[in-house]
Amino acid sequence: MIELDTPALIIRKSIMKDNLMKMQKYADSKNINLRPHTKAHKTPYLANMQIELGASGICVSKLSEAEIMAEHGIKDILITTPIASSVKFKRLVELQKNFPSLVLYQVVDSAYHVEQIDSFSKDKSVIINLVVEVEAGQKRCGLIPDENLKNLIDLINQKEHVNFCGIQAYSGHLQLVQNYESRLSEAAQALNPIKRFFKDYKIEKNEIIISGAGTGTFYASDNSFFSEIQCGSYIFMDKAYKEIMKPNDSDNINFGNSLMVLSTVISKPAHNRLVIDAGMKSLSIDHGMPSVFDLKGVTYRCGGDEHGILDIEDESMNLNIGDQVLLIPSHCDTTLNNFDDMYLLDDNDKIVKSLKISGRGCSQ
Amino acid sequence: MIELDTPALIIRKSIMKDNLMKMQKYADSKNINLRPHTKAHKTPYLANMQIELGASGICVSKLSEAEIMAEHGIKDILITTPIASSVKFKRLVELQKNFPSLVLYQVVDSAYHVEQIDSFSKDKSVIINLVVEVEAGQKRCGLIPDENLKNLIDLINQKEHVNFCGIQAYSGHLQLVQNYESRLSEAAQALNPIKRFFKDYKIEKNEIIISGAGTGTFYASDNSFFSEIQCGSYIFMDKAYKEIMKPNDSDNINFGNSLMVLSTVISKPAHNRLVIDAGMKSLSIDHGMPSVFDLKGVTYRCGGDEHGILDIEDESMNLNIGDQVLLIPSHCDTTLNNFDDMYLLDDNDKIVKSLKISGRGCSQ
Repeated sequence: MIELDTPALIIRKSIMKDNLMKMQKYADSKNINLRPHTKAHKTPYLANMQIELGASGICVSKLSEAEIMAEHGIKDILITTPIASSVKFKRLVELQKNFPSLVLYQVVDSAYHVEQIDSFSKDKSVIINLVVEVEAGQKRCGLIPDENLKNLIDLINQKEHVNFCGIQAYSGHLQLVQNYESRLSEAAQALNPIKRFFKDYKIEKNEIIISGAGTGTFYASDNSFFSEIQCGSYIFMDKAYKEIMKPNDSDNINFGNSLMVLSTVISKPAHNRLVIDAGMKSLSIDHGMPSVFDLKGVTYRCGGDEHGILDIEDESMNLNIGDQVLLIPSHCDTTLNNFDDMYLLDDNDKIVKSLKISGRGCSQ
Repeated sequence: MIELDTPALIIRKSIMKDNLMKMQKYADSKNINLRPHTKAHKTPYLANMQIELGASGICVSKLSEAEIMAEHGIKDILITTPIASSVKFKRLVELQKNFPSLVLYQVVDSAYHVEQIDSFSKDKSVIINLVVEVEAGQKRCGLIPDENLKNLIDLINQKEHVNFCGIQAYSGHLQLVQNYESRLSEAAQALNPIKRFFKDYKIEKNEIIISGAGTGTFYASDNSFFSEIQCGSYIFMDKAYKEIMKPNDSDNINFGNSLMVLSTVISKPAHNRLVIDAGMKSLSIDHGMPSVFDLKGVTYRCGGDEHGILDIEDESMNLNIGDQVLLIPSHCDTTLNNFDDMYLLDDNDKIVKSLKISGRGCSQ
């Protein structure tokens, strides 16, 4: 019995700490920087823990997340998504102005971004670091590595109030590819056009940031192309990521599920069906159904916004109204974004700390 | 140009008001109570607006939503989901104690709920109104209408600190059935076993609440079985509901899409592809992709937690970085739960009011 009202978001502290240390150890062994993507946890306390363990900085998706992280003492932040309105350009420049010692990078992929940011930063007499997003197979944001990319880099170099710092090459489309070997070979291949670009235009890659890779593809950094890896989900390991990890991992990077949703059985209308108090407003289903922790023959089915339905194979199972159940989210990021707080538990299920998810809802 | 940072949740006020009035008019014409389900909007201001227009009370899914609504002056609340822990039983009883004039109903479906609530309410010298959930085809919570249901009603009647007030029969599984005629006939059929139960056990249905129906099935109340309808989504009408409404509606209940997500184009990496700043953390995809408002040949694709990808049929379309786009959520409830605030706009796109979504995240 965990002493929390439900649904509640809990973290097994020792498993999380172990995940953090394993990834840092991996990065250290490859002599590569670890810049964790904090959209997975959106929590300054956890970002600071990652920095203390050796991370060189963090990634955030949104400017509002960067503002919160800076306010909580993080000193090196990469915003991985372009911004494109006066309100946002102004806020970006003000963030740099308000935290002069903050090393802040904004991702861009067009002349529009560069011109606008340069103009706003000129007004406030600051210089903004830019990282150019390059297409790496995902077909989302990012320039194809050809003359247009070179022109954009040249434009940044011509401007006085922005600073070209490197590229971002994130192969998001490969993160959940099922077969481990093909995932890694595809991740390596996706970088070939970018490598060719560096060669063709004689860009010295040692002097710049090359940022990319995620929890599904970071092994691809073995090729030493990246100067830093952006993995985020490894801190929690949701069901989707856990299912595709490297089998029989000789490097011992077997990350564990550290994040779960605690729920209560609220109804038992049939011998083979129970209803719990966690539905889509607690457990996201965009990456499939969550799995039920530690109960064999029990599967979760979505029962709407506020209900989860548990189908029971063994009808003699002693699970009743009022009992607690733990669920492993299929997708941590979107599940976590439903909650305001999470709770760190020790190995005896005692709550050792409650954490406010300060970045919850920071989509702006 | 709507003067809001993005992504932002907006409401077209006149369309919303029109939806509210149409549903109230329908309920009045059928001499049935309208008890809107407020999990759709989670906002006391809108609940109060529904009451002012004639709603008899409201529904909420969770106790925490009930607490917020009571604090904001709502006087008649039905909690449509069973609760099952000491913490929750205590909170329920305290809510009634703190608001003595509040007419509060809690849905239950087992002797456990009844015994527990009776015991906790005895301790605080209050009486809690109970509504029994009955299976109406959804196979979620709810007792099959047979002797067990009769026994539960008898148990409630035997207890001193709970009060039997009626039944809830919600056919959630039918809300999004595509064919209009089959949806309604199935909704009517789902009630047959319950009608039989009332007849068999000679329960006088005029003296109790019979609560049910949603935006997809409320027409089924034509049969006058329900004493009140629980529709919620009609206030906003998401893409999923709008697509299945009655064609050529002779009763003129053509609800409009009043809720949208305002987003900004942040990248245009190809002539036929734009990226906007609203992904899964702003627009839920549990009921499919949102649709793009008022732009022909433009379709939305999910681009991850924070990105939406717009595919453009006509490559000459003049849509560029920095432009605003409006999206119609596929599922309003889970989309709204991502935001802390929403904005009411008049017909000229001027912001007339900002509303705090006080029930956002209230899953407990």
